[in-house]
Amino acid sequence: MATPLPHADALTAEEKASLTSGKSFWESTGVDRVGIPSIYLTDGPHGVRKQREGGDHLGIGDSVPATCFPPAVALGSTWDPQLLERVGNALGDEAKAEGVGVLLGPGINIKRSPLCGRNFEYLSEDPILSGRLGAALVDGLQARGVGASLKHFAANNQETDRMRVSADIDERPLREIYLRGFQHIVEHSRPWTVMCSYNRINGVYASEDPWLLTTVLRDEWGFEGLVVSDWGAVNDRVRALVAGLDLEMPSSNGVTDAQLVAAVASGELDESVLDTAANRVIDLIAKAVDGADASADYDRDAHHALAREVAGRSIVLLKNDGILPIDPTAGVKIAVIGEFARTPRYQGAGSSQIVPTRLDNALDELRELAGSSEISFAPGYALGGADDAGLVDEAVGVAAAADVAVVFLGLPGEDESEGFDREHLELPAAQTALLEAVLAANPRVAVVLSNGGAVRLSGWAGRASAIVEGWLLGQAGGGAIADVLFGAVNPSGRLAETIPLRLEDTPAFLDFPGEAGHVRYGEGLFVGYRYYDSRDAAVDFPFGHGLSYTTFDYSGLTAVQSEVGLEVTVTITNTGDRVGREVAQVYVGVPGSVAVRPVRELKGFASVEVGAGASREVTIVIPSEDLAYFDSASAAWTVESGDYTVTVGASLRDLRASVVVPVTGDAGLAELKIDSTLGEWLKHPIGGQILGAAFAQGAGAEMGAMLADPAMLRMAESMPLNRVASFPGSPITFEQLEQLVAVVNAQVHAAS
Amino acid sequence: MATPLPHADALTAEEKASLTSGKSFWESTGVDRVGIPSIYLTDGPHGVRKQREGGDHLGIGDSVPATCFPPAVALGSTWDPQLLERVGNALGDEAKAEGVGVLLGPGINIKRSPLCGRNFEYLSEDPILSGRLGAALVDGLQARGVGASLKHFAANNQETDRMRVSADIDERPLREIYLRGFQHIVEHSRPWTVMCSYNRINGVYASEDPWLLTTVLRDEWGFEGLVVSDWGAVNDRVRALVAGLDLEMPSSNGVTDAQLVAAVASGELDESVLDTAANRVIDLIAKAVDGADASADYDRDAHHALAREVAGRSIVLLKNDGILPIDPTAGVKIAVIGEFARTPRYQGAGSSQIVPTRLDNALDELRELAGSSEISFAPGYALGGADDAGLVDEAVGVAAAADVAVVFLGLPGEDESEGFDREHLELPAAQTALLEAVLAANPRVAVVLSNGGAVRLSGWAGRASAIVEGWLLGQAGGGAIADVLFGAVNPSGRLAETIPLRLEDTPAFLDFPGEAGHVRYGEGLFVGYRYYDSRDAAVDFPFGHGLSYTTFDYSGLTAVQSEVGLEVTVTITNTGDRVGREVAQVYVGVPGSVAVRPVRELKGFASVEVGAGASREVTIVIPSEDLAYFDSASAAWTVESGDYTVTVGASLRDLRASVVVPVTGDAGLAELKIDSTLGEWLKHPIGGQILGAAFAQGAGAEMGAMLADPAMLRMAESMPLNRVASFPGSPITFEQLEQLVAVVNAQVHAAS
Repeated sequence: MATPLPHADALTAEEKASLTSGKSFWESTGVDRVGIPSIYLTDGPHGVRKQREGGDHLGIGDSVPATCFPPAVALGSTWDPQLLERVGNALGDEAKAEGVGVLLGPGINIKRSPLCGRNFEYLSEDPILSGRLGAALVDGLQARGVGASLKHFAANNQETDRMRVSADIDERPLREIYLRGFQHIVEHSRPWTVMCSYNRINGVYASEDPWLLTTVLRDEWGFEGLVVSDWGAVNDRVRALVAGLDLEMPSSNGVTDAQLVAAVASGELDESVLDTAANRVIDLIAKAVDGADASADYDRDAHHALAREVAGRSIVLLKNDGILPIDPTAGVKIAVIGEFARTPRYQGAGSSQIVPTRLDNALDELRELAGSSEISFAPGYALGGADDAGLVDEAVGVAAAADVAVVFLGLPGEDESEGFDREHLELPAAQTALLEAVLAANPRVAVVLSNGGAVRLSGWAGRASAIVEGWLLGQAGGGAIADVLFGAVNPSGRLAETIPLRLEDTPAFLDFPGEAGHVRYGEGLFVGYRYYDSRDAAVDFPFGHGLSYTTFDYSGLTAVQSEVGLEVTVTITNTGDRVGREVAQVYVGVPGSVAVRPVRELKGFASVEVGAGASREVTIVIPSEDLAYFDSASAAWTVESGDYTVTVGASLRDLRASVVVPVTGDAGLAELKIDSTLGEWLKHPIGGQILGAAFAQGAGAEMGAMLADPAMLRMAESMPLNRVASFPGSPITFEQLEQLVAVVNAQVHAAS
Repeated sequence: MATPLPHADALTAEEKASLTSGKSFWESTGVDRVGIPSIYLTDGPHGVRKQREGGDHLGIGDSVPATCFPPAVALGSTWDPQLLERVGNALGDEAKAEGVGVLLGPGINIKRSPLCGRNFEYLSEDPILSGRLGAALVDGLQARGVGASLKHFAANNQETDRMRVSADIDERPLREIYLRGFQHIVEHSRPWTVMCSYNRINGVYASEDPWLLTTVLRDEWGFEGLVVSDWGAVNDRVRALVAGLDLEMPSSNGVTDAQLVAAVASGELDESVLDTAANRVIDLIAKAVDGADASADYDRDAHHALAREVAGRSIVLLKNDGILPIDPTAGVKIAVIGEFARTPRYQGAGSSQIVPTRLDNALDELRELAGSSEISFAPGYALGGADDAGLVDEAVGVAAAADVAVVFLGLPGEDESEGFDREHLELPAAQTALLEAVLAANPRVAVVLSNGGAVRLSGWAGRASAIVEGWLLGQAGGGAIADVLFGAVNPSGRLAETIPLRLEDTPAFLDFPGEAGHVRYGEGLFVGYRYYDSRDAAVDFPFGHGLSYTTFDYSGLTAVQSEVGLEVTVTITNTGDRVGREVAQVYVGVPGSVAVRPVRELKGFASVEVGAGASREVTIVIPSEDLAYFDSASAAWTVESGDYTVTVGASLRDLRASVVVPVTGDAGLAELKIDSTLGEWLKHPIGGQILGAAFAQGAGAEMGAMLADPAMLRMAESMPLNRVASFPGSPITFEQLEQLVAVVNAQVHAAS
């Protein structure tokens, strides 16, 4: 540990204010007078994007080369926290080598709509999966003494009008879907920083929302790190500071620092608030200084190899009729078609765009592994160019002469970027036309996709022999694709998001991206697979789906509740002749729940390698906190008592075994209130008895007799008793009702 | 006009308070001292339900016989305001004969979900249709000197927890869908009273919502009548009075009157507020006294005949392969099957339940019109009884021996009532099993349905030769069904609500009926057909659908904008050999609208009778107000300028002709603001020029050069300029931005 840094009480108001905003685009401000240095905070999340000196004024210009690991869309498909922890380690090593104290990532926003332009930077449509994977990245990064910046907090699920739009979300889906992953990572991995998002939530800027930044983040989740603004996310600096935003980035040229100083001087801002923020900045700087190592370096080749390994683990084999893998010793004639095979699409545009240390392409890598295969190539289409019938003709000729065609399709880079959303899910028409022409010439077609967000496949998916979803695979993706096509890697990626049949089918279709500065999250809890399942709607490829070159059986499923939660055990048997990796997915449903619930929700998973013919027993622990739902009535996380259905599956729609487990929850007996309904009274274990007695005699007898008629009872059940009390001839007065409520609740408290 | 009644200033606070609540369940309070009488307010809406003396304490016991007209679900299917005005006239005559001053109806709540238990009391899923038809009912009723009570105001779209639940709705759908029909009727038909609903809206009880009851209803719509509570809807009497609720019903036994008096005495309540409410009650009483006629009576036979005519107009022929009509001169052997043929289901349960003056059943009426047909009957199932294989066997025998089977199916009475919602859309399993057995014995089956809410037909609809949707047809429905089956009436009903394929497909499926006291209207504007169209989803029978025994062609569609709105003209030709009635439906869409919009929305319609082989030109005027959408940004109704697509159809999915009409709207050029985005600036006719000039030179030149890159521009477009101004090296300062905004807006104002 270096010399301790001074605290805020040693600083002037001006110095404290300057500390709490940037010095430049990518540096915090230091205080030379007392020896507080500045630190670098640079973009991630899938590589270290340290901008060169003299970059542009939006901060997205040229940067120092770094390993471009697969972006989050690919990482999410690995379903493997241990692998992501290794990526985090590598990112930490590179950041350290570049003198970077905080890497701005991971991004764990939920993929609410496949149209979100930044989905390639996010992990999943599911918060448990996002939370587990994001935590692993943070752990891996911070183990190297480099801080993470968990982002974008919160509900930054679109790019359209992102700097103003209000995400209008009811508290339950906000908590259960959009905040749950953040909560998990904050509570378990303690990121050094959390980055507040640009948008508003229910009308309040995230950057100045005390509920979000203080009540939830610090008071409830126990966050002790620093909150940094997304670059340019501060709307009102004083309000932001009060709400819990510690560090404004980038520099505001001193303008907002002066506002803080003036607010302190005028008494509008309590100086202790500024002290708290300044101390958090100092603490962060101290950690960064502590983690820094001027001599640090990293092994570019090893990192490239890791990038290839991770890319191979990210690829999702959506479909395969047996055409894959291609045996490199069999002398197969392979037509490689599509410009993306030669010019890879490997990352998205915007602040996360890395200058890679190297860049592989699939065509070269296929040739490298080709063995006795013959590889021919035709680009088929031009990137950024006009449609070219000559290119199609050439490709058709190449395909017709081959045993198998591998067609590389994907979204052009200009379609996917931070800053705007897509407006459709379609591949370029020139590409699908090419595919149709190739299919007509040779039906043995494997399609390899490069796309940061889901695309519609439903026009042709049924006719392709194989579909390899490569997402965006980073700088070593070309080799990984070759590995999978030739079977050097047995694919094990699983969809972290549903691939829908049509845009019109997607949950947020009707209210994405909103209008007039608001986007209503009308689908509530029913995001991603939760929606398709609950509406019993068809999809193209379900959440959790992904094929292997081998097959797996599940057996012996058990689930028991223990002190820590639900312990789910199942045995996975590799029934094929090749080692492979299976991702066992545990879905939990609560039929008959008191709450509205998705049919089933992912609650745990395990990625395990199993040898050919071998079996492995895996135990997946679902912590009690993950069994809880956010009860709107009590505004609290609650584990409901009841029979839970625990299902293990190879995907959401390839469920293999199910058990029913009685779960003891943590909800006590509810109180009754003046406006509790007749139905609530009658169902209440204590209130029912008391009201039954009251309606058995005296003034209540007439009401009792009337309610003996089931039709009348059913009609009257929804009446609050205080309304009954107001009716002419009521058998009960307000005063009597208040007495009854007091009697019931006294017994409720005595019983609990 | 009788002697004028005294005003509030002649009364004591106690007298005024007593005036503003009920004397009993069904009477307002009078003030004997000054000669203010009480009046009767009794349930409708499809008949006069005057309770006999000594009824029960929920006010839903035995009542005086009255004509049971078809409930609203049937009336809605007529799409004929003139017909509904005649029903209103008849209701007025009956109310007058019973000494009733206000009839509690019509109910025009939107059918948000087919599960709503009270949908049979409502007209449609569309606000334009509900508004037009409801206005006609009010006009007809009030023409007789009897007041209407337009209900339930507002957003009372479910029965579950109806006395507490908060309907959480964004303002635009609230205005465009849920309030629009109320607005139309208030503005055009001036109902004497509006009844506030039980529920809360966005957390505030309708009975105590000043925005709803005063700002919107009175200030915006110009309502000058009285607001009465739904029976038992008052939560806090003082707050309700202040919000604009004038009359609490029923009596609260003086409890809440005393609260008002005490609040006046303590100064909590300004006595002028009480005066206003009391004067409105006095005005209402005066109108009722004025309209009363102690000698009034009505012609029960004529009203029964009207009920039959209206029922015949309400029936919707969903499907017909030619099996209908049955020629009564052809000696057809008809098997009439189903207990509902003998024991009709003709109205729903709850407060609207009429004791009819007579009750026809279809079996007797079919025999009456049978001519040379032979009619056999088997009940097939027992109402309220257990499944009975003997009944099915008997029915199968009867069906097998007949030329055609007419099978009466429907929902049991206990399934549909005020007070609770349905939980599924299924017919009783015993009935569908019966139908399957009959279909197996004789494929020539016409199904006649009796149901207040939509049921799922998709299991068997494809195999029935004809489907007659009878909804609930009132006391003379049996004869109307016979009229349609034998062709004495050519069916002309059209669906006022979509019949979905499955419950899971319905717009509100995921959030109906809510939980924890809240129901989020997550589908927003996309209610009913607006949803299915926008998602391009399949339905069983679309909105507006209904067959005839003849066929119609459309030709010569034109649409022009005039001073009053859009004038749409089309010629309808009856291309068959039988007189018939067509409902021409005008749908309007605004492709490329600045606002989120359904693909098309009903904006006008006309029900016209056309002789065999004849043609009629109809002109449908769409008032400008109906072209407006509620612009969330300006919180104002706005007619957008642009090319509108005007389509005329025989149903939403049987569109016949379309024209594009340029429409000049009423929206002016928008101002720019400090936080307007770069994209908004560049697109703004004035701002774009000014900003372009600023970025062409000096400090702005670097920014201008960067934005010349389309990818960079697209990424930066969503940045508010005030955020740009805060970035290091920004080409513009806050002060300069403020000056630019002022310059632009000055030019905007000069231009408008």
